[in-house]
Amino acid sequence: MIGNISSIALSLPKKKVLIKDICLEKNWSYKKILDKTGIKAVYKSNPNETALSMAIKAAKKIKFKKSEIDALVYVTQSPEFLLPTNACLIQNHIKLNKDIMAFDINQGCSGYIYGLYVAQKLLNEKSKNKVLLICSDTYTKNINENDKTCSTIFSDGATASLVNNISKKNNFVFYTDGSGSKDLILNNSGQNSSLKKSPELFMDGRKVLFFTMNVIPNLVKKLLKKENLKINEIKYFVFHQASKIVIDNLTRILELPQKKVYRNYSRYGNTVSSTIPICLSEMIKKKLINRNDKILLCGFGVGLSAAATIIKA
Amino acid sequence: MIGNISSIALSLPKKKVLIKDICLEKNWSYKKILDKTGIKAVYKSNPNETALSMAIKAAKKIKFKKSEIDALVYVTQSPEFLLPTNACLIQNHIKLNKDIMAFDINQGCSGYIYGLYVAQKLLNEKSKNKVLLICSDTYTKNINENDKTCSTIFSDGATASLVNNISKKNNFVFYTDGSGSKDLILNNSGQNSSLKKSPELFMDGRKVLFFTMNVIPNLVKKLLKKENLKINEIKYFVFHQASKIVIDNLTRILELPQKKVYRNYSRYGNTVSSTIPICLSEMIKKKLINRNDKILLCGFGVGLSAAATIIKA
Repeated sequence: MIGNISSIALSLPKKKVLIKDICLEKNWSYKKILDKTGIKAVYKSNPNETALSMAIKAAKKIKFKKSEIDALVYVTQSPEFLLPTNACLIQNHIKLNKDIMAFDINQGCSGYIYGLYVAQKLLNEKSKNKVLLICSDTYTKNINENDKTCSTIFSDGATASLVNNISKKNNFVFYTDGSGSKDLILNNSGQNSSLKKSPELFMDGRKVLFFTMNVIPNLVKKLLKKENLKINEIKYFVFHQASKIVIDNLTRILELPQKKVYRNYSRYGNTVSSTIPICLSEMIKKKLINRNDKILLCGFGVGLSAAATIIKA
Repeated sequence: MIGNISSIALSLPKKKVLIKDICLEKNWSYKKILDKTGIKAVYKSNPNETALSMAIKAAKKIKFKKSEIDALVYVTQSPEFLLPTNACLIQNHIKLNKDIMAFDINQGCSGYIYGLYVAQKLLNEKSKNKVLLICSDTYTKNINENDKTCSTIFSDGATASLVNNISKKNNFVFYTDGSGSKDLILNNSGQNSSLKKSPELFMDGRKVLFFTMNVIPNLVKKLLKKENLKINEIKYFVFHQASKIVIDNLTRILELPQKKVYRNYSRYGNTVSSTIPICLSEMIKKKLINRNDKILLCGFGVGLSAAATIIKA
């Protein structure tokens, strides 16, 4: 239990790929890449593993009474179908009640924070019930194996979180800048898809890093000010696990003590909206979080979009 | 102004297609189809008109101060790209502030009610600000011209609604049944897309009608009970404009007086999440709604999913 999150479960593809092996095959410098990304392994879904199937697996690992679930919120940018709403498919697979709301949110690296915010809002009036918040993406399905930037960073995975009502509401901050939409984009997808070209992920790593360095420190400071808290009052900063260079820069600019910055990108890669809940799930298992600890969560990236909140354990 | 919706704008594709002309070309019985659907014309987007471009056009027709907008919620099942979040693209196009939240909701025929609910929740704490709620879809892009069911019903369109805070919150009811997900689906889309087959819309009209008749009357009764209202206290029932046969059956089962049931499907066809706001926009123009009138809104379809609320003018 951290704040109003009572449990978190994850589901990863079976196939773990070592970046070392990719570098050997492609004749890329592993040392140079590792120095920048810090990522040693990523998870790659096989054709039978989709965002939806992983989402269902993660949800099935969470213990809850069906009658407690008021809403199912599914955060994804890897829909099984464009329609119907994928949350409806999940509702049926895990046999949730029919008198609930179920919808998908399209958000990427800031998606978990968006999901927590919406869940908190949905739970405003009823104190007993819960929101099942699922995040799942399979970016690796649309990466060109010769794209060094994307293929050494992105990873597939799903998480399910059970969100309860809390009496004291958490503060949230958001940032949206669509002028950078082309810096991280799935080309040839959606209305822009055709039978001529497969969807292909593109990231301008330099521009996304620039956005992160320019926007995130101020967003974090804005949130701390809103909550009237100082950096030393925060036990952990859990940033979106974009890559080593991103988190190193945020740590430096915000002058954060290293021990306050949780990192696990080396073992999971960048799983988009699931990086933050994967961190939280590990931190709970490792018993790193004690009662009344304050944890700052901050997601950022594709959109470009960013969001942050502070939860109290 | 109806309830907390202060204005609604719409944007339709340039091309209006008469069902009469489709029937002539395909040698289908216009009389037989019209008796069932009641739809005389649909709007079809050309390749340059996408859900996103129509959404932006609709949003630009709404008057608001940029500083008033706290959040942009975009309801669509016709994304321009699977990623980034399309609401970020809209934020940039209409130059909204950057310190806002912006996200897409994937919902279809129940999408406007979902959007109103989420907007109301987002506005819970701040009384001054507003949510820009945009709905847009282009189902006709993925319809086989020989598919009699889909090609004589679905239509493209977008609406933008400005949603204010209100002191007294409206009640909402929801229904989700993913077991009927295959009854209205975009095959070969999302993770199920390939370079071999184009996405293609499929609807089992009989099953969707059956769902509507089985579920919607009870959902409407549940909402009326929740609000402690009787049918005669509702000025208008604005159902999702699915087709004549659907609304006729709901009117009959619920024993509603014909004059209380607003219909405009004959002129617009089924524009998915935009049918209800298109109705409201017409009703405002025609001055059909007076202060304190209660209007019941009910969306249903793809998912399968349904949602309803009562707004007070």
